[in-house]
Amino acid sequence: MLHLRKTLYSIFETSAGKRRGVSLVFNLLLITIITLNAIAIVLHTVPEYNRRFAQIFTDFELFSVVFFTIEYVLRIWACVENEKYHHWFWGRLRYIVSTSALIDFLAIFPFYFTLFATDLAIVRILRLFRIFRLFRISRYSHAFRMIQTVVNDKKEELILSTMLVVFMLIIVSSVMYYVEHPVQPDKFSSIPAAMWWGVTAMTTVGYGDIHPITPLGKLLGGITAILGIGLFALPTGILVSGFNEHIRDRKTPQRRVCPHCGKEI
Amino acid sequence: MLHLRKTLYSIFETSAGKRRGVSLVFNLLLITIITLNAIAIVLHTVPEYNRRFAQIFTDFELFSVVFFTIEYVLRIWACVENEKYHHWFWGRLRYIVSTSALIDFLAIFPFYFTLFATDLAIVRILRLFRIFRLFRISRYSHAFRMIQTVVNDKKEELILSTMLVVFMLIIVSSVMYYVEHPVQPDKFSSIPAAMWWGVTAMTTVGYGDIHPITPLGKLLGGITAILGIGLFALPTGILVSGFNEHIRDRKTPQRRVCPHCGKEI
Amino acid sequence: MLHLRKTLYSIFETSAGKRRGVSLVFNLLLITIITLNAIAIVLHTVPEYNRRFAQIFTDFELFSVVFFTIEYVLRIWACVENEKYHHWFWGRLRYIVSTSALIDFLAIFPFYFTLFATDLAIVRILRLFRIFRLFRISRYSHAFRMIQTVVNDKKEELILSTMLVVFMLIIVSSVMYYVEHPVQPDKFSSIPAAMWWGVTAMTTVGYGDIHPITPLGKLLGGITAILGIGLFALPTGILVSGFNEHIRDRKTPQRRVCPHCGKEI
Amino acid sequence: MLHLRKTLYSIFETSAGKRRGVSLVFNLLLITIITLNAIAIVLHTVPEYNRRFAQIFTDFELFSVVFFTIEYVLRIWACVENEKYHHWFWGRLRYIVSTSALIDFLAIFPFYFTLFATDLAIVRILRLFRIFRLFRISRYSHAFRMIQTVVNDKKEELILSTMLVVFMLIIVSSVMYYVEHPVQPDKFSSIPAAMWWGVTAMTTVGYGDIHPITPLGKLLGGITAILGIGLFALPTGILVSGFNEHIRDRKTPQRRVCPHCGKEI
Repeated sequence: MLHLRKTLYSIFETSAGKRRGVSLVFNLLLITIITLNAIAIVLHTVPEYNRRFAQIFTDFELFSVVFFTIEYVLRIWACVENEKYHHWFWGRLRYIVSTSALIDFLAIFPFYFTLFATDLAIVRILRLFRIFRLFRISRYSHAFRMIQTVVNDKKEELILSTMLVVFMLIIVSSVMYYVEHPVQPDKFSSIPAAMWWGVTAMTTVGYGDIHPITPLGKLLGGITAILGIGLFALPTGILVSGFNEHIRDRKTPQRRVCPHCGKEI
Repeated sequence: MLHLRKTLYSIFETSAGKRRGVSLVFNLLLITIITLNAIAIVLHTVPEYNRRFAQIFTDFELFSVVFFTIEYVLRIWACVENEKYHHWFWGRLRYIVSTSALIDFLAIFPFYFTLFATDLAIVRILRLFRIFRLFRISRYSHAFRMIQTVVNDKKEELILSTMLVVFMLIIVSSVMYYVEHPVQPDKFSSIPAAMWWGVTAMTTVGYGDIHPITPLGKLLGGITAILGIGLFALPTGILVSGFNEHIRDRKTPQRRVCPHCGKEI
Repeated sequence: MLHLRKTLYSIFETSAGKRRGVSLVFNLLLITIITLNAIAIVLHTVPEYNRRFAQIFTDFELFSVVFFTIEYVLRIWACVENEKYHHWFWGRLRYIVSTSALIDFLAIFPFYFTLFATDLAIVRILRLFRIFRLFRISRYSHAFRMIQTVVNDKKEELILSTMLVVFMLIIVSSVMYYVEHPVQPDKFSSIPAAMWWGVTAMTTVGYGDIHPITPLGKLLGGITAILGIGLFALPTGILVSGFNEHIRDRKTPQRRVCPHCGKEI
Repeated sequence: MLHLRKTLYSIFETSAGKRRGVSLVFNLLLITIITLNAIAIVLHTVPEYNRRFAQIFTDFELFSVVFFTIEYVLRIWACVENEKYHHWFWGRLRYIVSTSALIDFLAIFPFYFTLFATDLAIVRILRLFRIFRLFRISRYSHAFRMIQTVVNDKKEELILSTMLVVFMLIIVSSVMYYVEHPVQPDKFSSIPAAMWWGVTAMTTVGYGDIHPITPLGKLLGGITAILGIGLFALPTGILVSGFNEHIRDRKTPQRRVCPHCGKEI
């Protein structure tokens, strides 16, 4: 029994030694099921496919939930093999509230809830939750870490430039509201409505459903769009300098020698 | 009395030592009121909310102005505690014309003015001024400084690339006017009208309300959009090199000493 | 005969010494024919030109194929002059399956296939293949290599950020589908339909054919567009640091010697 | 007479010593007239202004041409003071064909030509040329040089990435033409028409006048837009590394000392 638990644990954690082959096969299977789930969730909203393959979607959903549930229970059972969680009760509890276990839980919980839920609105929202199964894949993307590190290092600057954007957005939209409201009272009906214009102008999306028509409004709109370019430049600049620092830190040799006395510094 | 002034001063300036707790609470309160003001100003333009919560908006506006006014007067009274402004008259005058005090004044002045103004157009513009209360928050964003420093360092290059944009905009729009005016006299009715197209094309906003339809116009429009990419690249390049310089300057120690022999390296 | 083969080989490969002049003329001719082919393929879809210059298009197509075929055969014949492919049979076979020879083959093969194909749909697709003749020009762009090197060095990060985009796209579009479907069932008819919105919002294209209209949808749409700016920042940051590394590696001398005392620094 | 020529020359060239005050005033006047010219050219296309201020526009045009003509003649007369152009005939000829003198000539020549031209189409095109008077200002923007230097250093890479864009544009538009033409024969009527879509998609302008509607077309359109992000990243990366190199070259101290023998390297 303990041997089985050890085996399971080594299968769940890819990097583990002996059972690498089995582990790889299992994890590839898991990634495939998660990806198929994402595809199924996306496609089952297409009326035509939903009609034609209704049975397949239902069966696959059932199979996925059963598979994920068994896997979830086994993971909790086997997690005590990890030193971090080795207490039979508190260790398992700590594992259950860890990010990756919570994501695993969120992937199956909505299904069970819908069995009992009678309110259709709640069922719909719970179905939406299923798309977060995709997050389970984040477990495998070790390479996400470099990007994560850089983004983390520059978190403060990035939050700040986002705040700057929101700040500018409020100012720009308020001014535009006062300029365009008298001429287009149906489109620029309020500052929040003007903010929808503001966000599409500053991010240069420009759907065309709302835009200034007065000369002054167009002048302000043009300035806003040009300022929007700065919005692209700021986070880019921040991230680029983050990447550069990251690479420099990694590349700079740890050991350096003083040219005078020859000892390491 | 002098003691009270000192206490007030130490509350107004967050970084001050002993009364840090009170100061923090006061400043958080101020940030909350400013944020609520911004939200109120934005939401009161939504007809539905304005109808339903009219009384709340009016009351909150009154409360804010009273609060800001008392704070403003107290700040002027207490500012002499700062060495920079320590003369009882000239110091206070110098404080009043400082940027942050002017922003504080602009946050309350429109209200008092509207009490006497009879012209509705002026009242509307004064109301618009209230949104600048948001600027009061800039007092707290110490982190804005890195971005400010970089932008300041590269001011000349940034102004230049903005000038380059305006330059290109005039040329491109003039040419497009001559190409598209004969075919779309209502849309490309004049060079200023063509400049509205130009700005949406170069910033890649592209609302779709105005765009070339002749083959030559489309060719020029395509070239303009591709040139527009350069518009994004230039300020980004400038800001990135600014960030890099900033980080390098901050990181490179001015003098470094070998810890073994004590000599400079 | 062998002499002719050698001559041909030296003409085909630009960098070769003695026959540089002839080689240059031949390669310029080839680039011209390829460019004219691209122009012909593009223009022959314009009904007016196709009607007026039908004969010219047909003749030029025939001439191009004959020219490319003869060139292709001669290249295979002469390739054994290259040490890499010097075996008369296996060398030639290896040359035939090399990337550049395959591109050359793809440039002529569709024509011969259309002679026998009776299904019009297949003929249309084969005609589309002709545009890939343009790829033949890649043979000449030695300068492509720096960009290629940088992109290659950062392949993993670039694939990753593309995956991140797809990831975000699925999440964002699913949420938007649940928010906007009840109000715009014809536009946000399914998650794949919402993904078309998602991609135009995140890349800031914003055609305007599909966009949120509910307040919650607009809020999410705004957040998506702002997140989209990060999409621009990430690959730019990655590529910039790639370019920087590339230039640093090229510029930093591996060993430096003091010209006075001869010691390494 | 020679003295006058010397005085004039020192006025025309801002950096010259003694007459700096007069020179500054003259050059500011010139910049003002050029800017007013640009504004006049832009505004005279607005029917309303053209009707109301017709006389002012005509008078100002006449005044500008006379002013520019006199200045042009005097510059040619005085240019021999410059060592580069000091021969009385060949020096002046060499000055006339210099870039800045040619721009000065282009600023006045159209006016004289329109006096004799009878064909209205030519007159219209010549009027368009007047906007290039704005280029005269480039004489004053010494700061343009840093940007110019960087762009020049990276010319090859920038041209290459532009070529890459055109390359991708042709491929993408051809494929899209074959996909969308059967469904939207009026919009994707030919490959050149599809290229208009292609350029607005790749540059993320997205006017919305033409876009794919088939599922396959939308998939390709989405991929194109995401590839378009790379288009922004490449030149940005190139320019950023250019700026970095430029700054590094400028900052790296010219003199360095070998740590072993103490001599300069």
